[in-house]
Amino acid sequence: MKVCCLDLEGVLVPEVWIEFAETTGIKELRLTTRDIQDYDKLMKYRLEILKKRGITLKDIQAVIAKIKPLKGALTFLKELQSKRQVIILSDTFYEFAEPLMRQLDFPTLFCHYLEVDKKGYVSGYRLRQKNSKQKAVEALRKLNFTIHAAGDSYNDIPMLKTADKGILFNPPPKIAGEYPQFPVAKSYKSLMAKLLA
Amino acid sequence: MKVCCLDLEGVLVPEVWIEFAETTGIKELRLTTRDIQDYDKLMKYRLEILKKRGITLKDIQAVIAKIKPLKGALTFLKELQSKRQVIILSDTFYEFAEPLMRQLDFPTLFCHYLEVDKKGYVSGYRLRQKNSKQKAVEALRKLNFTIHAAGDSYNDIPMLKTADKGILFNPPPKIAGEYPQFPVAKSYKSLMAKLLA
Repeated sequence: MKVCCLDLEGVLVPEVWIEFAETTGIKELRLTTRDIQDYDKLMKYRLEILKKRGITLKDIQAVIAKIKPLKGALTFLKELQSKRQVIILSDTFYEFAEPLMRQLDFPTLFCHYLEVDKKGYVSGYRLRQKNSKQKAVEALRKLNFTIHAAGDSYNDIPMLKTADKGILFNPPPKIAGEYPQFPVAKSYKSLMAKLLA
Repeated sequence: MKVCCLDLEGVLVPEVWIEFAETTGIKELRLTTRDIQDYDKLMKYRLEILKKRGITLKDIQAVIAKIKPLKGALTFLKELQSKRQVIILSDTFYEFAEPLMRQLDFPTLFCHYLEVDKKGYVSGYRLRQKNSKQKAVEALRKLNFTIHAAGDSYNDIPMLKTADKGILFNPPPKIAGEYPQFPVAKSYKSLMAKLLA
């Protein structure tokens, strides 16, 4: 009775904000939770930059629509879904994720929502709840599922700690060093083996 | 922040036990939760019949592999998944559901497990938990999701009552009469409209 909980960015798709920063040339948007651990601080910083530069949600979505899932992600996900129940736990927003989830055949995704003002600017964000990844794993464990979870970043650590088994997928060396208790997978083949074991 | 919880049999696929009874000609296996509300009594009755007749899990799976999802179910599910997060809540077993879930592109399914003895006979079943559909809806609501749920049978009623919105899909007139508080959908078009509203 196993459920696999996967982080989205860094595990199945690239880091959306980094891709966005690359395409638009706005270097300040390259920071992620790998750099600033406090997610609220990071998001407020990002929204401030977007507002200053007059970038609307549609502008952002147009960029995201061009991003592809990581190479091999769809095949990996399809195989995992045929063997385990899979839920994606992400700190992204449904508005950003949609064009990427479409390319992944819409697996179940638990994430957050954006607030958009009348002019189409992102005015804020609504976290579904704090520590949402950890709480989702706790809820699934109370439904008597065994949880194997995989992520790559600081915001995944509570999820990995709460799961019955936590795996780091292609983490930065700093994070792998700080959390030596989690096995590290560096390919989908290795990640699949660790998730199924 | 909406999640749609769907019953499996009667909503996306035919009643597996009825199909099995039709194919094998074992009339006693036609009974479902529509007929016997106590699921444990129903399952023990079914397993007794299988044992008496020497039918193994493989025999059952061979029959189920030939069953098709309901007409239009895949298209309906794909459209719903593009608009809402979808979780299938069922009182079936992963061992039975697999060939059907494959035809539905493996949506997330919460259900139960079978116990199989060394000779390949179904020796028992393991409910993940009692009132599993209701508990799953409660857990998802605690994750701050709004739940719209749809089912057709007695074992769906607690799920429909616990959800923010409950819908009966092609229910027997008796159930629709007993629970007039739930709107009734008789086509996927109508069900889609009610789930999205």
